[in-house]
Amino acid sequence: MSLSYYSQDLHGPFETFSLGDFELEQGGKIRNLELAYATFGQLSTKKDNAILFPTWYSGSSKVLEQVYLGPGRALDPEKYFIILVNQIGNGLSTSPSNARPPYDAARFPAVSIGDDVRGQHKFITDKFGLSELALVLGFSMGAQQTYEWAIRYPDFVKRAAPIAGTAKGTPYTRALVDNFIEAITSDPAFDGGWYKEARDVHRGLRRHAGIFILAGHTPVFFDQGLWKKIGFSSLEDFVTGYAEAHFVPQDPNNLILLLTKWRDYDAGKSVCRDLAGALAQIKAKTFVIAIEEDGYFSRAAIAHEQSLIPNSALKTVSSSWGHLALFGADQAFYESIDTTLKELLGGS
Amino acid sequence: MSLSYYSQDLHGPFETFSLGDFELEQGGKIRNLELAYATFGQLSTKKDNAILFPTWYSGSSKVLEQVYLGPGRALDPEKYFIILVNQIGNGLSTSPSNARPPYDAARFPAVSIGDDVRGQHKFITDKFGLSELALVLGFSMGAQQTYEWAIRYPDFVKRAAPIAGTAKGTPYTRALVDNFIEAITSDPAFDGGWYKEARDVHRGLRRHAGIFILAGHTPVFFDQGLWKKIGFSSLEDFVTGYAEAHFVPQDPNNLILLLTKWRDYDAGKSVCRDLAGALAQIKAKTFVIAIEEDGYFSRAAIAHEQSLIPNSALKTVSSSWGHLALFGADQAFYESIDTTLKELLGGS
Repeated sequence: MSLSYYSQDLHGPFETFSLGDFELEQGGKIRNLELAYATFGQLSTKKDNAILFPTWYSGSSKVLEQVYLGPGRALDPEKYFIILVNQIGNGLSTSPSNARPPYDAARFPAVSIGDDVRGQHKFITDKFGLSELALVLGFSMGAQQTYEWAIRYPDFVKRAAPIAGTAKGTPYTRALVDNFIEAITSDPAFDGGWYKEARDVHRGLRRHAGIFILAGHTPVFFDQGLWKKIGFSSLEDFVTGYAEAHFVPQDPNNLILLLTKWRDYDAGKSVCRDLAGALAQIKAKTFVIAIEEDGYFSRAAIAHEQSLIPNSALKTVSSSWGHLALFGADQAFYESIDTTLKELLGGS
Repeated sequence: MSLSYYSQDLHGPFETFSLGDFELEQGGKIRNLELAYATFGQLSTKKDNAILFPTWYSGSSKVLEQVYLGPGRALDPEKYFIILVNQIGNGLSTSPSNARPPYDAARFPAVSIGDDVRGQHKFITDKFGLSELALVLGFSMGAQQTYEWAIRYPDFVKRAAPIAGTAKGTPYTRALVDNFIEAITSDPAFDGGWYKEARDVHRGLRRHAGIFILAGHTPVFFDQGLWKKIGFSSLEDFVTGYAEAHFVPQDPNNLILLLTKWRDYDAGKSVCRDLAGALAQIKAKTFVIAIEEDGYFSRAAIAHEQSLIPNSALKTVSSSWGHLALFGADQAFYESIDTTLKELLGGS
């Protein structure tokens, strides 16, 4: 089930880059870390037109491509060399579901956002010989990776667009993610991560899906039945056909790894600074983008962080779809993001 | 565990009124329905100063007394005869946890808000000989009961204050309450409601508590650590010492009964009308009170309903505590409610 879901058929075409054995910040080691990625467009001879776009929670490079890339858009493959990279643990890059025993499943080591970004840095320097990125952007957990890039490699990142995410987890986000984790791990079939088949844990995955959309969308979304705009007929149809359909085919250990990474991210850790000190290191021209109605990362927390970044501006976008507007179904939201990214890329 | 929690020690003093066998709207029958209640103040000789204040989800008459009653307040026992009544299934009135076998636990019949209000009507007419209420008010599920009162007995209710609740469930509220129900019933120890001891289901109750506070408070509440104002030191301390402490001693079947009642309430049902038709029947002077940041009942849904009530006004109160501001810890919220109720009671 897991293997067929995390496939080239559903998420490809993608390639993989091998980083060999990779030591992790929290002390573990991944044997032969492979990052799955897809590129679009041509790298210029000056190598100054590369854009890096890492994935969000429970998503792959495919959805980023489908929603945000295209001619005439901000992320235009005719102008830019766009690298979509799958974060560690998302099922395409090395993950609990595809690691070789005995390093698999519940024994997969703890990974942090810092590990992802160190791995991505090695990948794009070794593979493409890059020494700068015209833009790093990402939504949600992708915003976390964007912050980490801009803080860890300040001279490498020319522009940054962290969207609907924070550089440091807040108590609210921790409470939220703890509820997600509990929903999955409380399924007796989860068995401490040693389930036989991922789909045996479907009850926990469905429970998680229910909370995911509750906080991920807004009361207005539900009460106006905005699911009709993407082809669902009722609350039940939406819960099952959208939310459960998204999570039930996925691997529970993968999701727990991602959720733990999400919950515990703190941009200051890798540079041994507090949040303000870490954000002050950013040299990139930065547009911090918040969703007004975001039920995962609050606008207040995002705005506070933006105020600590030297060369930055806060851009707030409104959507009744809430945080999960990132899936691209709200055309007005999509247009706002695209316009904002064009403005950022158009600047010096 | 359940029996000691639902006790006079913790929730009293309260009295009970027996309604005998009581037929329910959905076809069941409660053998010897008893409503637990507490009264404050004196009924005037004209019997025109009675206020009815039913309970919210998972609360008893005790918390209403402690938070909202007192000399100089809107609900002043020196001026009014105040009846606090416990809804069916809350553990003090007849409930799954205290009904006699074979009508107990998972076999307790389905109850609706309409049943509560019919029972309360019989109780206060038989016991006190009332033919009018100066005010019916309630928060959350108490707002549902308030709406039902004002619609079912329009000449009886002179003033109504439904606070932070709706006359008809919305898809968002349904999604929310379904998550609450799933959190409890998914605990294997729940066993279809046939657990031996309520506390065996503590994992499900804790899970429920986690989602309850997540949506019940606001991101600002969490991120500013407002729990410090009520004596908790951290997120963990608050989750365990406040949310879990509230739910773990309660009876899972009681909570499921209340949640089902909450989820399925539709004010139009009992009068065979649609929502607009039902609300148009209200004769009471009505202040509909919404919490701006409410994560259980959205302001938009509440405002829409208010627009359908003839002699009504919408009052919006803001609180970073969100829906659960009703517990009274936010002094500014409390003062706003008190002032609004005084205005309503002061009018003709």
